[in-house]
Amino acid sequence: MPKLTNAQAGELARNVQLIVMDVDGVLTDGKIIISADGSETKNFDVKDGYGMAMAMFRGIRIAWISGRYSKVTDLRAAELGIDHVIQNCRDKHKALTGLCGEVNINLENVMFIGDDTIDLPAMKVAAISIAVADAHPAVIEAADWVTTNRGGNGAVREAIDLVLDQ
Amino acid sequence: MPKLTNAQAGELARNVQLIVMDVDGVLTDGKIIISADGSETKNFDVKDGYGMAMAMFRGIRIAWISGRYSKVTDLRAAELGIDHVIQNCRDKHKALTGLCGEVNINLENVMFIGDDTIDLPAMKVAAISIAVADAHPAVIEAADWVTTNRGGNGAVREAIDLVLDQ
Amino acid sequence: MPKLTNAQAGELARNVQLIVMDVDGVLTDGKIIISADGSETKNFDVKDGYGMAMAMFRGIRIAWISGRYSKVTDLRAAELGIDHVIQNCRDKHKALTGLCGEVNINLENVMFIGDDTIDLPAMKVAAISIAVADAHPAVIEAADWVTTNRGGNGAVREAIDLVLDQ
Amino acid sequence: MPKLTNAQAGELARNVQLIVMDVDGVLTDGKIIISADGSETKNFDVKDGYGMAMAMFRGIRIAWISGRYSKVTDLRAAELGIDHVIQNCRDKHKALTGLCGEVNINLENVMFIGDDTIDLPAMKVAAISIAVADAHPAVIEAADWVTTNRGGNGAVREAIDLVLDQ
Repeated sequence: MPKLTNAQAGELARNVQLIVMDVDGVLTDGKIIISADGSETKNFDVKDGYGMAMAMFRGIRIAWISGRYSKVTDLRAAELGIDHVIQNCRDKHKALTGLCGEVNINLENVMFIGDDTIDLPAMKVAAISIAVADAHPAVIEAADWVTTNRGGNGAVREAIDLVLDQ
Repeated sequence: MPKLTNAQAGELARNVQLIVMDVDGVLTDGKIIISADGSETKNFDVKDGYGMAMAMFRGIRIAWISGRYSKVTDLRAAELGIDHVIQNCRDKHKALTGLCGEVNINLENVMFIGDDTIDLPAMKVAAISIAVADAHPAVIEAADWVTTNRGGNGAVREAIDLVLDQ
Repeated sequence: MPKLTNAQAGELARNVQLIVMDVDGVLTDGKIIISADGSETKNFDVKDGYGMAMAMFRGIRIAWISGRYSKVTDLRAAELGIDHVIQNCRDKHKALTGLCGEVNINLENVMFIGDDTIDLPAMKVAAISIAVADAHPAVIEAADWVTTNRGGNGAVREAIDLVLDQ
Repeated sequence: MPKLTNAQAGELARNVQLIVMDVDGVLTDGKIIISADGSETKNFDVKDGYGMAMAMFRGIRIAWISGRYSKVTDLRAAELGIDHVIQNCRDKHKALTGLCGEVNINLENVMFIGDDTIDLPAMKVAAISIAVADAHPAVIEAADWVTTNRGGNGAVREAIDLVLDQ
């Protein structure tokens, strides 16, 4: 079961300088939407977008790490001005530590938001790990804190509000 | 917590001549749906549309104010015959007061329906402010009344029914 | 409140020869999905489709009456082999009685499934009127029976199962 | 009512070498999404996809059997590397027994996941039959075990986790 109370999670979140998150199932509702021409569509959440914009305005860095590749992820990242987008990534722990070196931020200042078992290695080394409400049971079990909203339905905004203390 | 009972909200709503609302998360479910060609899709609600048509038939004005720009919003507004559509708006309070001057309606005859913190300045000056059921907690807290339906799922119709006393 | 128990609804449904239904909010989840090129998309339900196919196989007629026009409605009707599709209809009572004359079926053998107040005049004259679970409160109030499933999520199948006694 | 406890289902699932499933309503949320140009879109689930990849990596075979035909089903199957995709199938029992012969796996090593009555003949002969949480009542009734997740929302992953003992 998650280990932190809301107050403890808020305390830890105050030191966060970099928020890293998975894409499908975290920034979206996990639907892989495929059309007859083979193109893909994704559902992002408007409140999550506004939260990321506010966080970046306050100097907090945002990064997305996805196990799959989708052009739509790049398009949404460009609209929001997300600088760090890593796709087609099999080893999220390695990607996270590489990113931390690149932006010169320690793991003790990192929040990671995930929803599936592929996120666990990165979640384990982040200072605060967050599972979305509809994450895989093993991710709920391992997370420091769990959002009340589902992925793609404001879960990321909830985690950001913790950091911004709103 | 919201300050009005249903009866009190109904009382206030009887004086409404202008209903102003946000788009993403209020007229839609908040999903920012992006396709591989970069185009955007939105989910509007059929019952909301019918409610707005009935309100306009009864002489009540409808306006939409969105923080983002989307061509789809213009398309849906044209289908429904919405005259006042303001997009890409960072200051909704200013947009609302400007609109009131333009159509010569006082703020005491205005209802505003919102879902996120960017809506708060406009909600505070409207005669009656309404939050959709899945609004940001700070908006739920500040609103005069909260719908039982979620954004894009009949929340706007519920607010209009209050005005039309149905 | 709806007037019939499940047993009574099943009794009445046994005489149904024609099942008439609204489209948006009954056969779909009520989402009006608009893309940037102005085209529309609709979400139908696979279980509803299978139910209508079984009903038609048993000789029961199916008709759709929609207040709006959408090309997508014609496309789905063609796939399922629905013979009677009336769109852009403002007066559903008139459309229903006209249809009954055309196919030579009495109103006492008609089931009507609706979700909004525009459906009420037709619902009032049908032998059995059904509201989907997320219908407008006035439609829930007026209906003989209410499905447990929401529109576009198996509500039509539930009504058909009543007729087919499954 | 389903006949197996979680422990009993896990016991049976340990012998599964082939997992067969329906597409619409099992791998998707059952929405038949039709656009104005007649093309179809489907919503698959990212966690289901990851589960099928893990199962195949462990040597378990995956097959899809659909009553309808959709090009999108082929596209998603190709992305995931699903070898056995049978579409436009009216007799799923026959398709299942044919498939078992082809891959040389006995029915006592087969799991079948379904959601509608057309799946029942195949479910009855599989060693373990699973209904998704929002399956037709007759399928819930007949199934050995029922997932807690709805179709297209992780139901398939839940069944696979049973096999992989995760």
